[in-house]
Amino acid sequence: LLDKMLHKIINLTVRDVRFPTSLDQHGSDAMHTDPDYSAAYVVLDTDSGLTGFGLTFTLGKGTEIVVCAVEALARLVVGKCLQEIVSDFRGFYRLLTSDSQMRWLGPEKGVIHLATAAVLNAVWDLWARTEGKEPKQLVSCIDFRYITDVLTEEEALDLLVKAQEEDQMQKEGYPAYTTSCAWLGYPDEQLKQLCTDALKSGWTRFKVKVGADLEDDVRRCRIIRQMIGPDNTLMIDANQRWDVAEAISWVSKLAEFRPLWIEEPTSPDDILGHAAISKALAPLGIGVATGEQCQNRVMFKQFLQASALQFVQIDSCRLGSVNENLAVLLMAHKFNVPVCPHAGGVGLCELVQHLILFDYICVSADLRNRMCEYVDHLHEHFTCPVVIQDAHYMPPKDPGYSCEMLESTVQRHQYPEGNVWKNMKK
Amino acid sequence: LLDKMLHKIINLTVRDVRFPTSLDQHGSDAMHTDPDYSAAYVVLDTDSGLTGFGLTFTLGKGTEIVVCAVEALARLVVGKCLQEIVSDFRGFYRLLTSDSQMRWLGPEKGVIHLATAAVLNAVWDLWARTEGKEPKQLVSCIDFRYITDVLTEEEALDLLVKAQEEDQMQKEGYPAYTTSCAWLGYPDEQLKQLCTDALKSGWTRFKVKVGADLEDDVRRCRIIRQMIGPDNTLMIDANQRWDVAEAISWVSKLAEFRPLWIEEPTSPDDILGHAAISKALAPLGIGVATGEQCQNRVMFKQFLQASALQFVQIDSCRLGSVNENLAVLLMAHKFNVPVCPHAGGVGLCELVQHLILFDYICVSADLRNRMCEYVDHLHEHFTCPVVIQDAHYMPPKDPGYSCEMLESTVQRHQYPEGNVWKNMKK
Repeated sequence: LLDKMLHKIINLTVRDVRFPTSLDQHGSDAMHTDPDYSAAYVVLDTDSGLTGFGLTFTLGKGTEIVVCAVEALARLVVGKCLQEIVSDFRGFYRLLTSDSQMRWLGPEKGVIHLATAAVLNAVWDLWARTEGKEPKQLVSCIDFRYITDVLTEEEALDLLVKAQEEDQMQKEGYPAYTTSCAWLGYPDEQLKQLCTDALKSGWTRFKVKVGADLEDDVRRCRIIRQMIGPDNTLMIDANQRWDVAEAISWVSKLAEFRPLWIEEPTSPDDILGHAAISKALAPLGIGVATGEQCQNRVMFKQFLQASALQFVQIDSCRLGSVNENLAVLLMAHKFNVPVCPHAGGVGLCELVQHLILFDYICVSADLRNRMCEYVDHLHEHFTCPVVIQDAHYMPPKDPGYSCEMLESTVQRHQYPEGNVWKNMKK
Repeated sequence: LLDKMLHKIINLTVRDVRFPTSLDQHGSDAMHTDPDYSAAYVVLDTDSGLTGFGLTFTLGKGTEIVVCAVEALARLVVGKCLQEIVSDFRGFYRLLTSDSQMRWLGPEKGVIHLATAAVLNAVWDLWARTEGKEPKQLVSCIDFRYITDVLTEEEALDLLVKAQEEDQMQKEGYPAYTTSCAWLGYPDEQLKQLCTDALKSGWTRFKVKVGADLEDDVRRCRIIRQMIGPDNTLMIDANQRWDVAEAISWVSKLAEFRPLWIEEPTSPDDILGHAAISKALAPLGIGVATGEQCQNRVMFKQFLQASALQFVQIDSCRLGSVNENLAVLLMAHKFNVPVCPHAGGVGLCELVQHLILFDYICVSADLRNRMCEYVDHLHEHFTCPVVIQDAHYMPPKDPGYSCEMLESTVQRHQYPEGNVWKNMKK
């Protein structure tokens, strides 16, 4: 029934929802020392009664700017029917990303692209609540502008539907790694305790934040490697702290702890810098991972062309929703580079689980060197939170894109008028 | 006297100022078909009575998002003293660009970076009204983060003060080219008339918008080349219309008109794409120019490293004000690539004239293949508009960064409450 209706979007609301995570140093790293995990949270109401929920993740201050950008995009969305949108989703994507006046503010990057993600995530949520999709429909969602030198529409269609490994996912889930044990702001004792707990819960892959102080990094990596043993996996993450030469020399000094990858060694914009770092660290057996702040498909294309990364970290909110992530998944597959999504924050795990399952079932059918980030925070605020079993993401069962928040959460955490913020001494 | 005072910034105001330029197709190109030249306009008040004016350029819709971002940055500015800022300008730059929560929205790109430019342009205006600057002070304004693999602080200091050609500038000015004759939306008759007028006024360099329709482009380029003759200079500008292969084939078909450069052939983010286009077009004697939407120094660094452009088009509002433009001027000089700034819009000519004069006097001392864009629009709204003589920018004589608007203009053009907009049927 639902897929026969037009679902005209009659209203878009966007709210600034913030969680005071900085109080306990959750999420702290070398560049983001005090994040308050936040979201610009979008609700689309339709005339059929169907409701779509979307968000984009932010770190607190400035969320109001993204909210303002979503409001600017609203005029392009309200009044449209879902069926009209998805029948030419590429056209709708380009309507949002290439508005002839607003594209100056990006194009397809920064605030305006984060806002686009929030809106499109809500549209995908609507769509996902109505029906199944065909490969051809999916490819028709991708804007191939600026990437046809690497991937054409015909190739994309060829790359899809080869894999069909849904059963294994239903049984075992998709492997995850944890970032929850070793935020930069955690003291050693907390780190040890969290690591012990995580091992008990079946975790085998651990990420450590580094980059602020080399001695601290050596000590913390040594603690973790000793605790997890030689066979478990360790990754390190500098969150863009270094210049190119510094990245190479710093990471070389951590090589003894055998990290699988160094994540975000330098500016997320520095493709050639990442290529130089990749080349220098390859003999040490350390790969380069990046992507959570990679602004769009054009940048990912070049990272792949230049062999500048060995792990693609897509983000469900930084890129233009499923549409643009599909393009990146397909390009990564073509270049034979594994995808290990960024998650955590608030709602990112809920969203990205869909993308990584899609990647496995419809594109890669491969788990070698693949895993999805997991952070154990804030899931209780969602109506359908992720399910982790034995360090694996279990496939979501509810229809939609899984980022509907509890209305009570939204009201309490709305900034600045929600009780959580009103009651806080600032 | 002025340079002895602290000049505490006691207030920041930002206004959304728009000009309905789309009504007459001024500024139209293949991607921006109906721009309303606009600005987020910043005024800094100090306790000394000195006032600083800054802006960032936009195309109309969405200017309110940049205004919102400037308001978010205001808390980092108000209360600071000018002398405190400029004594550690690199630190202040990083305070704005690397705020641990707000950097997630960029970093250093899109809306948040445009807002940073507006604020810093106003700070530079304040500073320029008080005193002269030493080379060492200038270098201390640059944030070398992420570019030390190409340019260090010591090198930067070495590259400065070699040149001293101020006299010639005072006498003859800096060469300009005009974009005013051939916007994409102008009919052929208008184009011919404007071209005739421009030739009479001494213009020798002309830019034509292309990229929407090949037949139109051939016809328009032929008209212009015939009118300006074989010895004058023609440039073409596609405003990001093509993918890589399409750019090469399309421009090849315009080679007979001998354009000096093709500007923005593809995505501003596609360094490797521009490199491929540069390589393919070099045998035809056509260079590649880009930069007006190049988001920051890290991208410019790579464009230079990859030989992806032959003309560097800095922008006074896209980059983080003078601070970041200094870094790009110095890198371009090191790579021996001429700088031909983007201008036009509203206020861009007023701002960028300072940068290009600085480049000539303090960095390059070279005019080969160098010229600054000029568009003959909206200058009447500034208290100290640019002075063009015989197709040259004449050095500005008034103190400051030349982007103070007439208060009457701001009030009439403020969006949406100014009379210009209130009276318009929308």
